[in-house]
Amino acid sequence: MYDGIVQELIDEFGRLPGIGPKSAQRIAFHILQTPSFDVKRLSELLVEVRERVRFCEICGNVAEQERCAICRDPRRNAALICVVEDAKDVAAIERTREYRGLYHVLGGAISPIAGVGPDDLRIAQLMTRLADGTVQEVILATNPNLEGEATASYLSRLLTTMQITVSRLASGLPVGGDLEYADEVTLGRAFEGRRVL
Amino acid sequence: MYDGIVQELIDEFGRLPGIGPKSAQRIAFHILQTPSFDVKRLSELLVEVRERVRFCEICGNVAEQERCAICRDPRRNAALICVVEDAKDVAAIERTREYRGLYHVLGGAISPIAGVGPDDLRIAQLMTRLADGTVQEVILATNPNLEGEATASYLSRLLTTMQITVSRLASGLPVGGDLEYADEVTLGRAFEGRRVL
Repeated sequence: MYDGIVQELIDEFGRLPGIGPKSAQRIAFHILQTPSFDVKRLSELLVEVRERVRFCEICGNVAEQERCAICRDPRRNAALICVVEDAKDVAAIERTREYRGLYHVLGGAISPIAGVGPDDLRIAQLMTRLADGTVQEVILATNPNLEGEATASYLSRLLTTMQITVSRLASGLPVGGDLEYADEVTLGRAFEGRRVL
Repeated sequence: MYDGIVQELIDEFGRLPGIGPKSAQRIAFHILQTPSFDVKRLSELLVEVRERVRFCEICGNVAEQERCAICRDPRRNAALICVVEDAKDVAAIERTREYRGLYHVLGGAISPIAGVGPDDLRIAQLMTRLADGTVQEVILATNPNLEGEATASYLSRLLTTMQITVSRLASGLPVGGDLEYADEVTLGRAFEGRRVL
């Protein structure tokens, strides 16, 4: 055990996702030996990010203004909306450079076990965006696992009555995995080979 | 890619030891969704730890005062000094509850490849502590790998002329590993079975 405050920092780091107690200790000791200047920068950045960064009021992606950089970009194809579970998925898809449409971040996937139903996701906001007829295709890019598939089929049923093409990313993505961990090429192929539902 | 400041935070986290780009991204997004209050606490803790925590002027362990909690504790056996490479090793040994003596943190191990020689370690400070005759045994608890063994035999040669028992932690620790990752039982056994050099 350490004198109070060092243990406190270890505990705080241990609460971050994917960091176990040994890593937390390693990071805390790294901080002790890092120049004060750099620690101060990290400290300020944390607060600044939390204060300045919000979620885009249109698509739910991370944004430093009311609308994210993608929604503000007039060169993006507004007839195309790619629906993803998480803002991290937007970044993964952007890295493929295959897609030039807009996004819609659901904020999760339908999961009866985790108690997440359609009403907990940004589905109403999606329907609002589709109301004016601009959008011609909705690409369902939820994760290729149980919850993602359930969400995709829920949305696909919901959209059948509308005059909109609904597609799903091609399989080719490893099933049971997380979209955010797919490599650029695989993810790019999945975009090209998307099939109409 | 993300809007500037989010990417900056991801980059900062990626600089911490043992955190790859994917983990860094995961942590940054976790921060975005963490209540402001908790982020502020982590931010302040970082600066506070860096400002308040220093290294004990006697043994080199982490401390919030000039001397660490162990050096200040009158119940510890001042006739016994356990020499370790790193302050993290002090915590690992304390968890075994097998040892009631004092410590001396070297701040590393002799490594010609990394350019670390005896003069780069807190060896002169150790010799000063041994000068007044209080210490009867020095336990060499450097890591059971190449550098740790080299450091232990260097110190053991240095101490032969003094009226002090020099011992080394029993093997039983997995060779080639890091002391800080040993489990409590193994490390406790190693203390019991230490052999006089």
